[in-house]
Amino acid sequence: MYFSKAFIPTLKEAPSDMDNISAKLMVRSGMVKKLGSGLFEILPLGLKTLENVMTVIREEMASIDGQEVKLPLLLPKELWIETGRWNVYGKELFRIKDRKNAEFALAPTHEEAITDLARSFIRSYKQLPVMLYQFGIKFRDEIRPRFGVMRAREFIMKDAYSFHATEADLEEYYKKVYAAYERICKRCGFKFRAVEAAAGAIGGNFSHEFMVLADTGEEEIAWCNCGYGANSEKAECLEDIYEKSNEQVLDMQEISTPNVGTIEDVSKFLNSSAQKFIKTIIYVADGNPIAVLVRGDYEINEIKLQSVIGCSELELATPEIIMEVTGAKVGFAGPVNLKKKIKIYADYSVVNIVNGVIGANKDDMHIKNVNYNKDYKADVVADLRKVVHGDVCPRCKKEKLQFSRGIEIGHIFKLGTKYSKSMKATYLDANGKENLMIMGCYGIGVTRILAATIEQSYDENGIIWPVPLAAYKVSIIPVDFNNEQIKETAEAIYKELRALKIDVLLDDRDERAGIKFKDADLIGIPFRITIGEKNLKNGNVEFKNRKDDKSGAQIVKKEEIVSKIVEELKKYEV
Amino acid sequence: MYFSKAFIPTLKEAPSDMDNISAKLMVRSGMVKKLGSGLFEILPLGLKTLENVMTVIREEMASIDGQEVKLPLLLPKELWIETGRWNVYGKELFRIKDRKNAEFALAPTHEEAITDLARSFIRSYKQLPVMLYQFGIKFRDEIRPRFGVMRAREFIMKDAYSFHATEADLEEYYKKVYAAYERICKRCGFKFRAVEAAAGAIGGNFSHEFMVLADTGEEEIAWCNCGYGANSEKAECLEDIYEKSNEQVLDMQEISTPNVGTIEDVSKFLNSSAQKFIKTIIYVADGNPIAVLVRGDYEINEIKLQSVIGCSELELATPEIIMEVTGAKVGFAGPVNLKKKIKIYADYSVVNIVNGVIGANKDDMHIKNVNYNKDYKADVVADLRKVVHGDVCPRCKKEKLQFSRGIEIGHIFKLGTKYSKSMKATYLDANGKENLMIMGCYGIGVTRILAATIEQSYDENGIIWPVPLAAYKVSIIPVDFNNEQIKETAEAIYKELRALKIDVLLDDRDERAGIKFKDADLIGIPFRITIGEKNLKNGNVEFKNRKDDKSGAQIVKKEEIVSKIVEELKKYEV
Repeated sequence: MYFSKAFIPTLKEAPSDMDNISAKLMVRSGMVKKLGSGLFEILPLGLKTLENVMTVIREEMASIDGQEVKLPLLLPKELWIETGRWNVYGKELFRIKDRKNAEFALAPTHEEAITDLARSFIRSYKQLPVMLYQFGIKFRDEIRPRFGVMRAREFIMKDAYSFHATEADLEEYYKKVYAAYERICKRCGFKFRAVEAAAGAIGGNFSHEFMVLADTGEEEIAWCNCGYGANSEKAECLEDIYEKSNEQVLDMQEISTPNVGTIEDVSKFLNSSAQKFIKTIIYVADGNPIAVLVRGDYEINEIKLQSVIGCSELELATPEIIMEVTGAKVGFAGPVNLKKKIKIYADYSVVNIVNGVIGANKDDMHIKNVNYNKDYKADVVADLRKVVHGDVCPRCKKEKLQFSRGIEIGHIFKLGTKYSKSMKATYLDANGKENLMIMGCYGIGVTRILAATIEQSYDENGIIWPVPLAAYKVSIIPVDFNNEQIKETAEAIYKELRALKIDVLLDDRDERAGIKFKDADLIGIPFRITIGEKNLKNGNVEFKNRKDDKSGAQIVKKEEIVSKIVEELKKYEV
Repeated sequence: MYFSKAFIPTLKEAPSDMDNISAKLMVRSGMVKKLGSGLFEILPLGLKTLENVMTVIREEMASIDGQEVKLPLLLPKELWIETGRWNVYGKELFRIKDRKNAEFALAPTHEEAITDLARSFIRSYKQLPVMLYQFGIKFRDEIRPRFGVMRAREFIMKDAYSFHATEADLEEYYKKVYAAYERICKRCGFKFRAVEAAAGAIGGNFSHEFMVLADTGEEEIAWCNCGYGANSEKAECLEDIYEKSNEQVLDMQEISTPNVGTIEDVSKFLNSSAQKFIKTIIYVADGNPIAVLVRGDYEINEIKLQSVIGCSELELATPEIIMEVTGAKVGFAGPVNLKKKIKIYADYSVVNIVNGVIGANKDDMHIKNVNYNKDYKADVVADLRKVVHGDVCPRCKKEKLQFSRGIEIGHIFKLGTKYSKSMKATYLDANGKENLMIMGCYGIGVTRILAATIEQSYDENGIIWPVPLAAYKVSIIPVDFNNEQIKETAEAIYKELRALKIDVLLDDRDERAGIKFKDADLIGIPFRITIGEKNLKNGNVEFKNRKDDKSGAQIVKKEEIVSKIVEELKKYEV
């Protein structure tokens, strides 16, 4: 493409509402334009990049027998009533009525539609397994759209669904999907990590997130050299890492602690430490107040807590409820002498505390020398806390966990019979017996991949596209396009590269070379060929690799530049 | 692909709500599944076919410098307010609110969004022309969704928009688009006709519909061997084809015509003919009653009428208004002695009528011997009627028009400054003067193309895909896949064809050959290779071209079948 004909509206400055690096650079490079809150127009340069991502994904989906479909975006309410999600989805779901007042969901995801499709046609185990996927637009009415296309209200997702006769078949297939996702990430040139996404048992984890590593990522990943990796929100803490001190067990003693607020203050006041403190938080789980205990230097992990309780709603108790349950104002709860009998959930970290400190369930009072089993008991003891720096890896149990930041671009998981059960998607097995289909579900945030890639790969001059994703692999910059000889050489190289089907942007604009360099760097084109008068006199052109900023440009014979490019591109062939 | 692995759920019978041939065949062949009224899931076979259509369109759009974009489907109300379409669009527009009560249109078309995009970035004539297009999903809340994907509520459209500095540049570009559309139709294998879509002046017509010819088409096309073609709703009628009889002009005479209803009855009663009758219809145009005159044997063409009036709303007057305007009940209106002075529009066909018959604007009364100019005059005389069989071609003025039925699959037109004006999309010309951009707009009904193709190309056994569109070009049918030799041959041919990147469906199912033949014919695969024991003994396989049903199968040496296929496919290369 000639730059003068291309619709690539680059900007010197990003609009002020672009709130992270990738959003700024996507807008500045003319890849996207914001149309409204969380709504983006994908411009030619953005779409070409997106198509490259989609081609990689398509090839890998085909390699695991995925078949592409396209499902409607208007989804009849009736299907969502069947799964119960019409009522639980909340405000993130866009709902719309047609002229006859029939209601529809504007697709946020397609489990209902795909399960309906499967139950319509799949009768026999002979038709299984099947994997269907699509590049579908999704709508989510985010409360706070942000980070450009990363958290938009309308975006493109690759969503895939597989149907199986047996759990074992799904599990085998899950591994194939996992491998395909790894290949996608590698082919896209990502630094990435696949992490466990559910706070489940070690091994047999069938929910993984694929994280592109980037310092600006929203998510934190805990990982170990042994191969373990998990969203830090979900990383496990072991049960048996808390040593019990051998100091003498003392009797409980109530102490007045007026004007002493934080755990540190109380610990100081009592000449104790946060490790001795048993923090007690009152929650309301599906309407029932509960007490949750964790060691004073840890935080409760609400995701783990919710999964242990098995409740669908979990929130912090209000001061009124705390007063009702403990008999005291906020900040003085403890597991001993609660005013109301409520369920107590204790994290592994508290049971070995000898002579601990707790709130006394009385205003401005604490109790010291509290011991588990002797003075109080919990109904449930489990892993309920967040991992912290210094925690040991729960898999190898040897090395300490390491932490990185990342952006989730894919998520795969076993759905089991969640949808086939509510929607009655069954098949007949070899014995003629009716069974529920077993399902898996595999997403990739396709528009998000663009943003994630940029967060991982940019410098002060702009984007540095990994070669496989770059819309244009090569930019040809004639320093002066009005110079006949330069123009001729530029066009000859352009034609040669195009004949090899290589995407090239020839900057034929009547602009200063500096502006052309700036735009090429901003757009992030991997390879740059600069054609200037001085080099050309010696039969040379300049070659520069966008990512090797420090090594500078190389002088290459003009006859050899095309094979140089071909050689560079070969490194990225699958 | 192996058929046993493909998700192609063919059906023996079409569901009863599939109301035309293409809808029945698309559902029966497993290309689509209906999810709700006017909502279709595109299954793998349908999507593969659609991708073939899209590839053809993409290549042709690129050939005229089109650049692909992807615009959001949620379109902020504010943009639609700017063009005034938020209020005029009516019930066909799906409207939706977000969680903050902001309103959006669910994209039925994208003129607003694209014009907003152009005005955001285009400043100078140097940036023009630009053509942007997309394959976008469109939503239209059709009052009566029907004919499968042909008139659906959610469908894929290729919509393209061009921006120009001058009218002349747009007109030149329009011709390029026209040619690209012709190439698309030819490459898709259509029998088609490009017809004038506006009732405009001869020549200089910048609105064309591309019609796929099919006896089942919803539209009628009037055409001539001279090259003229128009939607019959829009075909022109000449002014000078009505001869004036030389009979003596008589004076008007009022006649009582009780119990005589139709024009034929009145004509008989008066011993006259429909050609003498001046039919007078009362309309209301933008709130104002008008009288429209046409010869008794013709029909008023409301599209032409509306364009001549230049009104935005046009409807038949109610009996109350007719009474108010004429002083009589329905059926007795005439241009003489109207009770109220209203504008009169006359079709060319009435002014030469000598001694005509009209309603008397009195109940059960007519007037005979009415003559234009002598007894009444019209405010406007114009082409206001529908063409009929026997009409002469308005272009060559020699041959009679011919009529065919067709399905509109594309529409191109000059928008001019309609949107750039209301949305203030301007650029600076070479003199630094601000001008409105001139716009063109070019649509193709992409999902509709599938249905239109089938309506044009099917037989009692199923679809007959044109080779360029067929999802699979070749079906290999091993008569018995359990026979080792047959299986080996089938798989060897399959591998050879796949190595040549030819799409092949190998029917490895454990089914009778008859069922395999039926499915291959239903799906419409162009070339069939049958491998049976008897032929194979002599080193032969059977070759059959789906569209040559009568010529039957040919026996081909198994070593030669691949080159036979390659040779057949070569005929369709671009």
